[in-house]
Amino acid sequence: MPTVAYLGPEKTNTYFAALKRFGRKATYVHASTVEEVFRLVERKKADFGVVAIENSLQGGITHTLDRFIDFDESPVKVYGEVDESIQHFLIFKKGIKPEKIRMVFSHYSALDQCREWIHANFPNASTLPTNSTASAIEELLKRDKSGFGRAAVGRIELARSSGLKAVPIPISQENRTRFLILSLKSAPKGDNSKTSLMFSLKDKPGALYDSLRPFKQYKINLSKIESRPTKRKAWEYVFFVDLEGHESDPQVKKALRALRRTTASLRVLGSYPAEGARGRG
Amino acid sequence: MPTVAYLGPEKTNTYFAALKRFGRKATYVHASTVEEVFRLVERKKADFGVVAIENSLQGGITHTLDRFIDFDESPVKVYGEVDESIQHFLIFKKGIKPEKIRMVFSHYSALDQCREWIHANFPNASTLPTNSTASAIEELLKRDKSGFGRAAVGRIELARSSGLKAVPIPISQENRTRFLILSLKSAPKGDNSKTSLMFSLKDKPGALYDSLRPFKQYKINLSKIESRPTKRKAWEYVFFVDLEGHESDPQVKKALRALRRTTASLRVLGSYPAEGARGRG
Repeated sequence: MPTVAYLGPEKTNTYFAALKRFGRKATYVHASTVEEVFRLVERKKADFGVVAIENSLQGGITHTLDRFIDFDESPVKVYGEVDESIQHFLIFKKGIKPEKIRMVFSHYSALDQCREWIHANFPNASTLPTNSTASAIEELLKRDKSGFGRAAVGRIELARSSGLKAVPIPISQENRTRFLILSLKSAPKGDNSKTSLMFSLKDKPGALYDSLRPFKQYKINLSKIESRPTKRKAWEYVFFVDLEGHESDPQVKKALRALRRTTASLRVLGSYPAEGARGRG
Repeated sequence: MPTVAYLGPEKTNTYFAALKRFGRKATYVHASTVEEVFRLVERKKADFGVVAIENSLQGGITHTLDRFIDFDESPVKVYGEVDESIQHFLIFKKGIKPEKIRMVFSHYSALDQCREWIHANFPNASTLPTNSTASAIEELLKRDKSGFGRAAVGRIELARSSGLKAVPIPISQENRTRFLILSLKSAPKGDNSKTSLMFSLKDKPGALYDSLRPFKQYKINLSKIESRPTKRKAWEYVFFVDLEGHESDPQVKKALRALRRTTASLRVLGSYPAEGARGRG
């Protein structure tokens, strides 16, 4: 069974995405940063790594995108994806009256996703960021003499394992996170492939338009495009593109060859089986 | 003199961007969220609002971009921009030995920007997120019996006004933040104009490519393109584009007319004087 590194601690959303894909028999290794997940895969301490890449409410996960940019010679490939629905719960100690809640702890992203609901239901509560949803629970379990009611936001599993109460937080929009499976190996080719790329533009007008022409020409659908700062120079961007098809497909091959000519740099991050619904570019 | 709303508390980077633009004689109103800055302008409680839109290391400021998406009928216009260099300082109480520092507080973004330096210089220190750089200082000033050395990351002005020590944090890459000036008025037309747009794509292959054609056709340079989730449906995107030129320029007018036909929705956020260096799209 494989060894799988994921962004921990345990019972985070990334952990459950890894579990969904690799099952209970795999060996799991917690990493405390996205950087560490990549490094464990690069140094063969783990066969696979699992990191979030995108959330449907918040967009790209910048730590992951930027690791691809900062180490553009890394041998790590995208081996697959997991697309998971995220359900947040308000978690608090049994015996706490919800109307007494004045402090809500959670990871920055989870607080952001639930901000409207928290404000509407607990107008007097402050939101306090923690390093992960799991550390929000640790905060909750600390002894507290303030007399203020305290709560955390996280998955129901976090409440269950600590004997805490959990109330589902309704969010009107669809809250999904897409995770990438990283590996040094390439994924076997299946029916419904997807390919992830990153490229930077030549410094000339119309460069982005020119870079998209090969996809149009070879009738390749883009399911995603996202820009990130290069960090080398202010206001210069790298583009992450997902396309439908496998890098060994003849049309994709032709498009990539043309793309290489129109861009300043191009890296194919991997071809892998597509999962779940996709947008259009 | 105008009334200017900004994302507070005082002495944050947004405050100094507002001050740079409107000077000491303007009346400043703190807002505690990006949402509140927009609302103060919409309800005419403030003549102008100042919010961060983009950082050169971290990319788009999602709260600001998403406010444009969530309230796409808002009368708020982009009236101008401020492009500011950001210098972070490690701030701590006089008498604390830097080698004793075990906890570093700051806003999530500031911690992210300084993470490498903190890890290299304080390998045993934990980073603890706070709601703003100013609240990191409040955390620092609290009485603490743990015996651990504590520090915050923020602007030097935060240290000065609290009698704290400050050491500059070197960051190898260029750290700049671009702020938008919001208003119900349009900016007077100057020499070096820039126009900000947001649009969503029709649901068909090649839609992004098609949407960029009018810019190529009318020789309009894009200085920026960024995608954000629509939040209405998972994995669907809205694009934010900055172009060189004014919406009243004949070529820009033609391009916008063509763009309106190729996109599902289009909103011109405003034309305003460009400031600072720009990338190329």
